[in-house]
Amino acid sequence: MPHVSIDSGEPGIRGLFAFSPETAGPLNALAEVLLRGDNTLTRGERELIATYVSGLNECRYCTASHAAFAAAQLPGGMELVDRVRAGTAGADISPKLGALLAIAAAVQRSGREVTGDLVAAARKEGATEREIHDTVLIAAAFCMFNRYVDGLATHAPDDPAVYEAAAERIVTYGYGHPAPGAQQAGHAG
Amino acid sequence: MPHVSIDSGEPGIRGLFAFSPETAGPLNALAEVLLRGDNTLTRGERELIATYVSGLNECRYCTASHAAFAAAQLPGGMELVDRVRAGTAGADISPKLGALLAIAAAVQRSGREVTGDLVAAARKEGATEREIHDTVLIAAAFCMFNRYVDGLATHAPDDPAVYEAAAERIVTYGYGHPAPGAQQAGHAG
Repeated sequence: MPHVSIDSGEPGIRGLFAFSPETAGPLNALAEVLLRGDNTLTRGERELIATYVSGLNECRYCTASHAAFAAAQLPGGMELVDRVRAGTAGADISPKLGALLAIAAAVQRSGREVTGDLVAAARKEGATEREIHDTVLIAAAFCMFNRYVDGLATHAPDDPAVYEAAAERIVTYGYGHPAPGAQQAGHAG
Repeated sequence: MPHVSIDSGEPGIRGLFAFSPETAGPLNALAEVLLRGDNTLTRGERELIATYVSGLNECRYCTASHAAFAAAQLPGGMELVDRVRAGTAGADISPKLGALLAIAAAVQRSGREVTGDLVAAARKEGATEREIHDTVLIAAAFCMFNRYVDGLATHAPDDPAVYEAAAERIVTYGYGHPAPGAQQAGHAG
């Protein structure tokens, strides 16, 4: 039972967006620019960072959602996403992405855990300032989204089809732009 | 030394806004609606929640900034802010605000720490669903802002005048709307 009334019955952050449209606007705008805006990190790579942090925060809804969004946009699909969630060592990712995920893991614990050594290691693997900045902000943003979703005890459906339908919508239309007539993942849950 | 190049030399999140204007937009829009939009919680009370969470996250820049913004908008001023930062028990705040701060403290640890009991206690003191929602999202948002500011090792000036000047600007113009010709707190640091 969510801590506030979600009249639409929609799961996770979708129910909260319906409860509070005035905050949904900036939250969706932030997700859109961070995860889908022009970037030298691919959309799949950025969704993988979001998934990894959501997993560390044990947020079931966000992890399942962004795992589906990452899998839909990464050549390695869900197999790669599951591999990274189990630990980055030995996963088939670039050394640069591995170093950025280490920064994201530090951010999840505390901003003060991001050491000069972690940043130097990412630079050594070719990470740009922009990529380091965006990794820190994506990880920080998911420390917000995860707390928002779990702090209000929203519903996380078990059916993977819910998240796959959401992935199709996000990949096609982006954040905050539900397609008219598109399958409503929320109602499927 | 910040982990990315802040050409303007501005401290804290102000430097990051200059580095990344495309994310500054939604971040400022979120702060504006959460901390200054129409609400049954006063602006001072919402800034106090932001200050409290920033203190728990040990983010020096955000704590000093929002303490100044709260003090400028609360009848109890900085004395009340300092009192709450030292612990809410015995502070001269309403039982409702005390219960909301307990929810904020839970969010700071993890969204999953916000129990039905904490929410029921806030409701018993008269908190509305909207106030509970906004408290959770303010606390969650500062878990992001704090990590963003510290994760990129931005500069936090020691001089209280920097934060007082910023408070004057925020109280007058709001977030994301620097006043033309207004004192630039960033350069004073």
